[in-house]
Amino acid sequence: MTITVPALVTPSAGAAFERTTIERRELGEHDVLLDIAYAGICHSDIHQAREEWGASIFPMVPGHEIAGVVSAVGAGVTKHSVGDRVGVGCFVDSCRECRSCLAGEEQFCERGNVATYNSRYADGSPTYGGYSTQIVVDESYVLAIPDGISLDVAAPLLCAGITTYSPLRHWGAGPGTKVAVVGMGGLGHLAVKIAHALGAEVTVLSHTLSKKDDGLRFGADHYETGDRDTLRRLRGSFDLIINTVSADLPVDAYLRTLALDGTMVFVGAPENKQQFAVFSLIGARRSIAGSNIGGIRETQEMLDFCAQHGIGAEIETITADDVDKAYDRVVGSDVRYRFVIDTATIPA
Amino acid sequence: MTITVPALVTPSAGAAFERTTIERRELGEHDVLLDIAYAGICHSDIHQAREEWGASIFPMVPGHEIAGVVSAVGAGVTKHSVGDRVGVGCFVDSCRECRSCLAGEEQFCERGNVATYNSRYADGSPTYGGYSTQIVVDESYVLAIPDGISLDVAAPLLCAGITTYSPLRHWGAGPGTKVAVVGMGGLGHLAVKIAHALGAEVTVLSHTLSKKDDGLRFGADHYETGDRDTLRRLRGSFDLIINTVSADLPVDAYLRTLALDGTMVFVGAPENKQQFAVFSLIGARRSIAGSNIGGIRETQEMLDFCAQHGIGAEIETITADDVDKAYDRVVGSDVRYRFVIDTATIPA
Repeated sequence: MTITVPALVTPSAGAAFERTTIERRELGEHDVLLDIAYAGICHSDIHQAREEWGASIFPMVPGHEIAGVVSAVGAGVTKHSVGDRVGVGCFVDSCRECRSCLAGEEQFCERGNVATYNSRYADGSPTYGGYSTQIVVDESYVLAIPDGISLDVAAPLLCAGITTYSPLRHWGAGPGTKVAVVGMGGLGHLAVKIAHALGAEVTVLSHTLSKKDDGLRFGADHYETGDRDTLRRLRGSFDLIINTVSADLPVDAYLRTLALDGTMVFVGAPENKQQFAVFSLIGARRSIAGSNIGGIRETQEMLDFCAQHGIGAEIETITADDVDKAYDRVVGSDVRYRFVIDTATIPA
Repeated sequence: MTITVPALVTPSAGAAFERTTIERRELGEHDVLLDIAYAGICHSDIHQAREEWGASIFPMVPGHEIAGVVSAVGAGVTKHSVGDRVGVGCFVDSCRECRSCLAGEEQFCERGNVATYNSRYADGSPTYGGYSTQIVVDESYVLAIPDGISLDVAAPLLCAGITTYSPLRHWGAGPGTKVAVVGMGGLGHLAVKIAHALGAEVTVLSHTLSKKDDGLRFGADHYETGDRDTLRRLRGSFDLIINTVSADLPVDAYLRTLALDGTMVFVGAPENKQQFAVFSLIGARRSIAGSNIGGIRETQEMLDFCAQHGIGAEIETITADDVDKAYDRVVGSDVRYRFVIDTATIPA
């Protein structure tokens, strides 16, 4: 028997959210029923709810930054127990057989993983995300949230946290390395905290200095604007640039701030193609790369790391009534630094 | 006292080559006098002789693929002896103090190394390259050419060889990896030979199949054209793409032929900016990178590797009279696969 749960639904591209109910699948042998406490609002929720990334599936319940408590488990569940504090991120299943899945990199599942919302399960039924009060997820795609992180500030770690942690780890941020974080939004502020905790020397490159005090408080060693003169002064400086902004950038000017063997990693996804001069790469064996969230194992590692270092997202908690307005504010960069929906406010 | 030596000189941008003499510096304590036997013609010679890469220094004696025999050494020379078979590549000095030089990556000298031609020594005097009968070079920038490689087929290894060997090694080409080589010219044919000798599975992507027999003979496992349908069929295939062509490419179509964590390395230098969609990178943590020749230590390693595996360039040996015509043929891709000047034909 399916489970009827309250949810915030947008019926069509760009339409306002409505309170309604949706059906969650019956708890299977390996499933966990999660009472959602908080759901973060990710910019990609907005892109998909407004159908800016190609065809979306409507009605849609966005949300892939989910934190809550286990309220029931299937008979075969071994990884989580009732009462556990847990989270769900950007995907709720994958093929489990391809090279990526076998390597624990389910985010790159060769058959395409099952996204937490705006996707379909193997049986064709649509997935609904975290703007809801409960969700049923296979235990293997549920993360443990360690004691020491509140559920509200943990929620955004499930996407924004892993999106920045994974490339920082993959490209070796740590003591002795210099990391630039481009953009101080939902992703950027966590990149600063995590890179600092990893031991790197961190420079924020933002379009203004308006968040400088915050940036330094989060652990940045330097806070600069990304204007041409500054980028020229910083030539040859960084081992790694984490670019969190979706706007078009003067890629070559940023590339030239990289030292030998440095890498500029895109974790945001600009709509337009980006341009680069090959000489900007050849001059110091530089790279341009892209990174996309992380696998289940690494997401757990990230949560454990954040708990150990006291890292949570900086949040503004909102009610179900505020989601439409929050979307506009995210688009206008008017949030410090992540909106989190208190899902207790969702039931009509 | 300076040494007067015959050379082929181009007096101004695009002008025909003339036989004349130039002065080489007096042999210093750490200098080697090298009797040049062969000098390869690199496409970058043409770009610089025709002033296509910004201001050039004229008169110019190009040539940075130099092979010959030591005929005299300075009092302090310990690395080479009279009679040794040696080579000189793309640079003849560097600062020796920066992080790159100290790491043996003099090709990325932070103060800019002294290129073999079209550059200036620390004292401001111009450098003249290998289209000449003798050259004086500091011993630390002179490579040993192992027995077992003829000097003529060794000459192009000093640029084309190291340009392809270095990225193949840096990005881990070897048994179990799949490498694509884009373009089957001077660089590409050596990339195929070296990648095959390293143990990789090698695919050539060329604009036609006209060199297929050669490619397979050089060690390619597969030979394909780079058309859209082929690239679509090859999606997710390669760990590494070595792009040797300077023409504009549909970068995204090539990126999508890379497997998880694959890298597309540019070793050619297209004049125009190249474009990419960030999603092409993010979808499988792919990278775009650039590589530029190699350091002295790695160049020696490459020469030793090539000797051990019987690898030399495929060459067409020409006289001093043929250089202008050879330039036109290189631009027209009408050479299999590298022109080498017999420098004995240079004296008037």
